Amino acid sequence: MRLEGGTSVILRVEMNKQMVTFGELVSLIGREGGDIVAIDVIQPGRRMEIRDLTVSVSEPAVVETLADAVKAMQGIHLVNVSDRTFLLHLGGKIEVHSKVPIKNRDDLSRVYTPGVAKVCMAISEDVGKSHALTIRRNTVAVVSDGTAVLGLGDIGPHAAMPVMEGKAMLFKELAGVDAFPICLDTKDTEEIISIVKALAPTFGGINLEDISSPRCFEIERRLKEDLDIPVFHDDQHGTAVVLLAGLLNALKIVGKPIGEIKIVVCGIGAAGVACSRMLLAAGVTRLVGVDKCGAIHRDERYDNEAWNDYARMTNPDNEKGSLSDVIAGADVFIGLSRPRLLRQEDVRKMNADPIVFAMANPEPEISPEEAGAHVRVYATGRSDYPNQLNNVLAFPGIFRGALDARASAINEAMKLAAANAIASIVTEEELNEEYIIPSVFNDKVVPAVRRAVIQEAINSGIARKVPSDFRNLD
Amino acid sequence: MRLEGGTSVILRVEMNKQMVTFGELVSLIGREGGDIVAIDVIQPGRRMEIRDLTVSVSEPAVVETLADAVKAMQGIHLVNVSDRTFLLHLGGKIEVHSKVPIKNRDDLSRVYTPGVAKVCMAISEDVGKSHALTIRRNTVAVVSDGTAVLGLGDIGPHAAMPVMEGKAMLFKELAGVDAFPICLDTKDTEEIISIVKALAPTFGGINLEDISSPRCFEIERRLKEDLDIPVFHDDQHGTAVVLLAGLLNALKIVGKPIGEIKIVVCGIGAAGVACSRMLLAAGVTRLVGVDKCGAIHRDERYDNEAWNDYARMTNPDNEKGSLSDVIAGADVFIGLSRPRLLRQEDVRKMNADPIVFAMANPEPEISPEEAGAHVRVYATGRSDYPNQLNNVLAFPGIFRGALDARASAINEAMKLAAANAIASIVTEEELNEEYIIPSVFNDKVVPAVRRAVIQEAINSGIARKVPSDFRNLD
Repeated sequence: MRLEGGTSVILRVEMNKQMVTFGELVSLIGREGGDIVAIDVIQPGRRMEIRDLTVSVSEPAVVETLADAVKAMQGIHLVNVSDRTFLLHLGGKIEVHSKVPIKNRDDLSRVYTPGVAKVCMAISEDVGKSHALTIRRNTVAVVSDGTAVLGLGDIGPHAAMPVMEGKAMLFKELAGVDAFPICLDTKDTEEIISIVKALAPTFGGINLEDISSPRCFEIERRLKEDLDIPVFHDDQHGTAVVLLAGLLNALKIVGKPIGEIKIVVCGIGAAGVACSRMLLAAGVTRLVGVDKCGAIHRDERYDNEAWNDYARMTNPDNEKGSLSDVIAGADVFIGLSRPRLLRQEDVRKMNADPIVFAMANPEPEISPEEAGAHVRVYATGRSDYPNQLNNVLAFPGIFRGALDARASAINEAMKLAAANAIASIVTEEELNEEYIIPSVFNDKVVPAVRRAVIQEAINSGIARKVPSDFRNLD
Repeated sequence: MRLEGGTSVILRVEMNKQMVTFGELVSLIGREGGDIVAIDVIQPGRRMEIRDLTVSVSEPAVVETLADAVKAMQGIHLVNVSDRTFLLHLGGKIEVHSKVPIKNRDDLSRVYTPGVAKVCMAISEDVGKSHALTIRRNTVAVVSDGTAVLGLGDIGPHAAMPVMEGKAMLFKELAGVDAFPICLDTKDTEEIISIVKALAPTFGGINLEDISSPRCFEIERRLKEDLDIPVFHDDQHGTAVVLLAGLLNALKIVGKPIGEIKIVVCGIGAAGVACSRMLLAAGVTRLVGVDKCGAIHRDERYDNEAWNDYARMTNPDNEKGSLSDVIAGADVFIGLSRPRLLRQEDVRKMNADPIVFAMANPEPEISPEEAGAHVRVYATGRSDYPNQLNNVLAFPGIFRGALDARASAINEAMKLAAANAIASIVTEEELNEEYIIPSVFNDKVVPAVRRAVIQEAINSGIARKVPSDFRNLD
């Protein structure tokens, strides 16, 4: 199965133009499986010339054979081969900019001492003003301890940085939110809680990211209790919001009311718990969670306290057994677990028009080929299949709205509203089995999510500011 | 005494052009002590017009009488009066930018999942790579607990933010360093230490700022021991570097060798201790520190442990008594204390050609008028007198150099080199009693400090990278 993204590399070549033509080099690279997508002349010359060739290859292994072939060519010296992704990461992917220049003493005296003193004193007299007079108005911390990064697991805080930087980029590019990565060199739950609390004066919101379960539950719960700014564990709630958005549209296709369907959620980690809670909040009643131990039910005492809570709120009929057992009669399968866990015979046990969201990364619980004949609506987390359920659809707009309303939290109502907003981007005419969710690059998503989140923040009384575009609407 | 910076305000006025001319309004504002420095037409019109007038006034009190006069004018409606400094601070002064755009799925797959995974794995296998492949290469945390902010004291972490944001701007504008404010909601020494240690994977350096004495000593000492990135308490060492730079040049004017002079340092807080250490490292031998208790000497047991250490390393003759006593025969007075502490009769007791650095803020230990007749070289921390000793001269170039050399610390040799580099910017021809130190806007300062710091980092074996401009010089 092709891994997403492929690879591209940059070959720096020194060419002796009397011995070889550029066309010959291009042909060679093509024969070896490379596709030249960009050319930069680094040092032009009549005899010798240095060029950077950006070459796409279908898989990383091609790079080596291609490079060997180039090296062996008469008249070509291969100076080096650089991986484009690594080059892009050199020095990190984000920068801190001044919003106003400091060109002279007058500027300096306003942004720094002595002028800054009166701004400091205004905040000291009323801490609430920090939301207006500092970067808190627009800034979110992306906090991780590096224990559950992507599918890579516990790779540590240093190695988690590129992901958190990428997340900060998405916040800015998609929603204009300033986000800063904070990768913590501790796995201690209490220490993480106290650190994030201590960091709060700097930020207007906290996005928790890639913190392993079950610590992530306690960390988020305690921070929500103790802080008056939004705290949002994206792996849980971002995933839940987008899944619900997809489900709402999938249910429109199959014409089933949300209150009557049976859902099996497979993989009851952080995301599984959050998705289940969200589905219940959205009106689902028949929900069964399955993990390694089989269906989670109320006759078992689990070491994982989250599962005991989970058993109390789900599985109304107290079903027991394996995934294969409880999938019978289900309308929806939601996989947040491992590749190839759902078999064709399982899908055949489901009700008519089955909906399968197979989110395991990078390989889904069931491949589209296998699901094909039996599943009515199929979605994954991948960008190379239709219906990509990607939390990039949720977090930028949710925080944009929360910051604009100066909300003290992101509550269930705001998340439900966000899911509805995302779903609503797909019009009735557009909606079909292969298009239940908008693209992450659809520029209607963030404004719609923002509006929905602000309205719910106002409705639920946790908005500390009414944005100007909400003031004259009533 | 005029406070630095003055004030300017923006008046938004609605003008009925049939009742009043703009010229009449300009005249009125001028008569009331205002100087119109900018005009923006917000809403043009034939009869009514709305304009924003940026008006400079000599002191804040003028704003009120001026506004009243404008209000009283026929045909003018004063919509509002905004303080320019506050307007400038709305939403904070810094932003986080992406270094590369994310315009399509291909971009996304490189800066975020799945492409980012290989960068994460490379760092996970070799943590040192985080200095190259993440923002650590160019990013410094500006950490404060808000306990000793400017001259304002313990105003708390929220209120400290505008200062730390201003500092981040200076880092970027003067030296291209990405700096991010971290204002901590705790005053506990141990907690601050453990938080900063936990934050280290995100940053390439730590600038401690405005943390009250004596906690700042312990915090800095422990962090330096435990971290392998530079930790620098600017209030101590930035001040010390710039004072030494000024002193080196002042001594050239009076023709006294540094090893023979007697220096009295008044105010033995964080900056006083650091300056004294730096002066000793630079070759000063006769140094006496004075605080509220008088001269610090070895026959006293002080509650403040820093003073016991201080007594051991200074005051070779174990002098006792008040400032007035020990100032006798001194060549240099360095004040880091309170306004008006040094009297004319004290200065008269000093040796010929006395050098007085009166750094108390906003009013120096002795005014230039009082010092005038008796002092040969006079310097302060203020921008409205000659010879401003401002740490903005030091920290940007010091961190620029430390980051470029991937230094594991900022050691004494690097700080001494920085002081020499700053002093060297003033040429022999330029040097005079009123010009011992370059302006903070002199663009030779940062490159000179950077070079000096890198060279010393290499010499002392703590550079983990030799910058390209240092590679071919030997």
